[in-house]
Amino acid sequence: MAKEAVRAVFPGRFQPPHYGHLKAILWALERVEELVIVVGSAQESHTLTNPFTAGERILMIRAMLEDEGVDPRRIYIIPVRDIAMNAVWVRYLQMLIPPVDAVVSRNPLVLRLFKEAGYKLLVPPAYEREAYVATRIRKLMLQGNGWLDLVPPGVARIVREIGGVERLREIAEKD
Amino acid sequence: MAKEAVRAVFPGRFQPPHYGHLKAILWALERVEELVIVVGSAQESHTLTNPFTAGERILMIRAMLEDEGVDPRRIYIIPVRDIAMNAVWVRYLQMLIPPVDAVVSRNPLVLRLFKEAGYKLLVPPAYEREAYVATRIRKLMLQGNGWLDLVPPGVARIVREIGGVERLREIAEKD
Amino acid sequence: MAKEAVRAVFPGRFQPPHYGHLKAILWALERVEELVIVVGSAQESHTLTNPFTAGERILMIRAMLEDEGVDPRRIYIIPVRDIAMNAVWVRYLQMLIPPVDAVVSRNPLVLRLFKEAGYKLLVPPAYEREAYVATRIRKLMLQGNGWLDLVPPGVARIVREIGGVERLREIAEKD
Amino acid sequence: MAKEAVRAVFPGRFQPPHYGHLKAILWALERVEELVIVVGSAQESHTLTNPFTAGERILMIRAMLEDEGVDPRRIYIIPVRDIAMNAVWVRYLQMLIPPVDAVVSRNPLVLRLFKEAGYKLLVPPAYEREAYVATRIRKLMLQGNGWLDLVPPGVARIVREIGGVERLREIAEKD
Amino acid sequence: MAKEAVRAVFPGRFQPPHYGHLKAILWALERVEELVIVVGSAQESHTLTNPFTAGERILMIRAMLEDEGVDPRRIYIIPVRDIAMNAVWVRYLQMLIPPVDAVVSRNPLVLRLFKEAGYKLLVPPAYEREAYVATRIRKLMLQGNGWLDLVPPGVARIVREIGGVERLREIAEKD
Amino acid sequence: MAKEAVRAVFPGRFQPPHYGHLKAILWALERVEELVIVVGSAQESHTLTNPFTAGERILMIRAMLEDEGVDPRRIYIIPVRDIAMNAVWVRYLQMLIPPVDAVVSRNPLVLRLFKEAGYKLLVPPAYEREAYVATRIRKLMLQGNGWLDLVPPGVARIVREIGGVERLREIAEKD
Repeated sequence: MAKEAVRAVFPGRFQPPHYGHLKAILWALERVEELVIVVGSAQESHTLTNPFTAGERILMIRAMLEDEGVDPRRIYIIPVRDIAMNAVWVRYLQMLIPPVDAVVSRNPLVLRLFKEAGYKLLVPPAYEREAYVATRIRKLMLQGNGWLDLVPPGVARIVREIGGVERLREIAEKD
Repeated sequence: MAKEAVRAVFPGRFQPPHYGHLKAILWALERVEELVIVVGSAQESHTLTNPFTAGERILMIRAMLEDEGVDPRRIYIIPVRDIAMNAVWVRYLQMLIPPVDAVVSRNPLVLRLFKEAGYKLLVPPAYEREAYVATRIRKLMLQGNGWLDLVPPGVARIVREIGGVERLREIAEKD
Repeated sequence: MAKEAVRAVFPGRFQPPHYGHLKAILWALERVEELVIVVGSAQESHTLTNPFTAGERILMIRAMLEDEGVDPRRIYIIPVRDIAMNAVWVRYLQMLIPPVDAVVSRNPLVLRLFKEAGYKLLVPPAYEREAYVATRIRKLMLQGNGWLDLVPPGVARIVREIGGVERLREIAEKD
Repeated sequence: MAKEAVRAVFPGRFQPPHYGHLKAILWALERVEELVIVVGSAQESHTLTNPFTAGERILMIRAMLEDEGVDPRRIYIIPVRDIAMNAVWVRYLQMLIPPVDAVVSRNPLVLRLFKEAGYKLLVPPAYEREAYVATRIRKLMLQGNGWLDLVPPGVARIVREIGGVERLREIAEKD
Repeated sequence: MAKEAVRAVFPGRFQPPHYGHLKAILWALERVEELVIVVGSAQESHTLTNPFTAGERILMIRAMLEDEGVDPRRIYIIPVRDIAMNAVWVRYLQMLIPPVDAVVSRNPLVLRLFKEAGYKLLVPPAYEREAYVATRIRKLMLQGNGWLDLVPPGVARIVREIGGVERLREIAEKD
Repeated sequence: MAKEAVRAVFPGRFQPPHYGHLKAILWALERVEELVIVVGSAQESHTLTNPFTAGERILMIRAMLEDEGVDPRRIYIIPVRDIAMNAVWVRYLQMLIPPVDAVVSRNPLVLRLFKEAGYKLLVPPAYEREAYVATRIRKLMLQGNGWLDLVPPGVARIVREIGGVERLREIAEKD
């Protein structure tokens, strides 16, 4: 069956990757041949909203997709630093990633920018958004262990290996 | 048999990837579990020394490794913009890629910087360097077709698909 | 009659230009020979506080001044990206624009920086500020059509041509 | 008679503007409604190859066009700092200038980049290039007065007002 | 008696330096041979949270230490611009300052970053934090003169010489 | 006796500091109360023309001045990253250093930029320039030991401590 697009880009911050991301990726893979996962704000780490480095987030996404049995030949994972010029951002992404003809996103700004640039828009359904939100997961990491059910096992394993929860808690301490 | 390192980084510009790169990668894969191929100077393209975008170079490396049957689960391909601060560069790479404990390179500056940072150095042999040099390949692209024997078939295919030789020749024209 | 200054600079963000800006410009043109209108935060666009690109804002200012019959030979319109170093900003502006000996502004920071740099300060009256404020205009754009009376006809025409209100509303949507 | 394009961009460094630039601009104005003159490398000044600031170059272009009687309502003069990412440059320009549908240039890189981005290319004839070249004019400025015949009177006037030749000679001195 | 470290770095913004800083510095000088005081966010000035330039802050710290009779040969004062990449920041500092083997700080993020980089952590006691906080001092500067008791005499002298309070008040005015 | 200036700035790259620098500093200290030594191109290191980090260069200058018995209270040593905008550079320096009213330099560009900004120019004599030139010293470092007579003992000591000659030679090796 013909795919809706040859290759699509899926931009996110993945702080950390969670089931919402995973479901959107699987949804996209039914519609495109190849998917380019852009790990955005790649320069950010060690803050309450961006605790993990781009390299760590790449490891987490890989582990998550491997658990799921996703064919690695259909996936690119590319870290991208912010450029702080919205009007240029789509073209800047296009420089750093293989050519794509569609974007996978629910983010209004992302959709608007790719629409202006003439790309096809693929909007995945909102999978229990109130649960699978990175903000909530980071909050639970600070408080206790409720976060473990919200991320795939591979992600939890990497968070543990890098001491991610300890890092988040140290940064959150008071001066 | 135990590998010499768990995960190593192999930085290059890959303008374009050629047999010298491929041999170094295969050499490295005998010594490490996983290899992170860093596509450097990712901001550069459309010049005589850097004709291809980072995204195009990623496509070329993928095609080259797929032809060779390399297991994609052992490979990361990460584009990295220059940072113009040598003393910081290794740490900057480390932010953008999964953790590594070794570098694969013959470049004296790269080796020196990773040595100062305490990494293990893996120096591949010099495979007929006079032949497999990107500078020479780009020169041949401008002149005729002698370059086709110097790059793996997958690379040649992508160069053709993106009109790479035509781009190089247009840029080389006189004002 | 002698002017108060040969050439003055009038910095703003113009998101979008409105009657407050227009009145300040006309006030200034009675006092200086030439006016350099600096379109600041030129790198910003596609956000709720900075919806329009620098190029679009230049078009709007031109249309506004043409409607008013302002002599284009007395006006320069120059987009300037932020530099994020207040102590350097005046000198940075001076690099990008023709020499000026005065600034036209009501902004306390702008006035302070130009005072420290030895420029003449021209402070226009506050024209019904509660009405003519870009923040309020953007809010009205999101809600309905009350904004049309707050901007000159030329500005409204460009906003319509570029689909400005539609853009603002799309960006404001919920994820 | 229908124009070939509604609005075109003409990028250059204009160090300084000369008769070659003027002829290209007049040629373009017969073919387009409006022309956006981009003063490139706007961050450069006080070097042997880039002696003048962007602001000074804007003054020179204005003076040159005013002498020639060009209608200022058909012209935009916009300084643009380099961005050092060729693949992004056209989109970056488009952010800072009013929308254009064509480029006016003889520069192979400029033509290639705009071609890839889908713009119309307008290539002006080469007007006695050996004479009207900024490199040669700057060399003559260092040596004597032969440069005066190579730039329009308005440009010469601004160079004199800002002490441009004296600046160039001071910078060229030996340590 | 052996010191706990040969040379330590003490990063801060020093907007302005106050008795809390001074006490931490004196505490550190009992434990290390030499102290590198990093004046962070060196690009910031003329805002309500960062009123003073890096150069002014250096003058204030010098005056404060001179009043106290600190041996200048044991002190380095180095301004450092932000780099906006936490994972790289420690290495970036290390490029700009003499080699150190410890950090002096109570800031959780600073401590975490230096811990990850393998440095020794020296955490000074919290000296009446509610009193000696730069935020409170800047607030008092805006309101009246209560701030004078919270900074050493040398700091107060420099603030007066540069008209620091007047600057803060002008910036705080309403548009 | 009255000094010619209260405080002057002396910018250089100091790769490495040598007797020419030392003599210029001593010459300046007879004419000004305080001297701000700016270690320029602070982002550069590990190249043939810029082998040492800013932090290492600061150590060298300190050692050189301590050997000479220079009063440290009269000296500031400030590393400064390049800004790549000549027209802004003087103001950028002024942000990062204590206020100065003069510059000490023989560099034509430096003198021109400070002259345009209204500073007093102090031009030290050319001390056996053919001998004391950093380019020649780095060349001798690569070849043998002739460089030791060209730098003060304190500089030689730091070069030895950091393995500076070994670094230079490693970087100079062929790929």
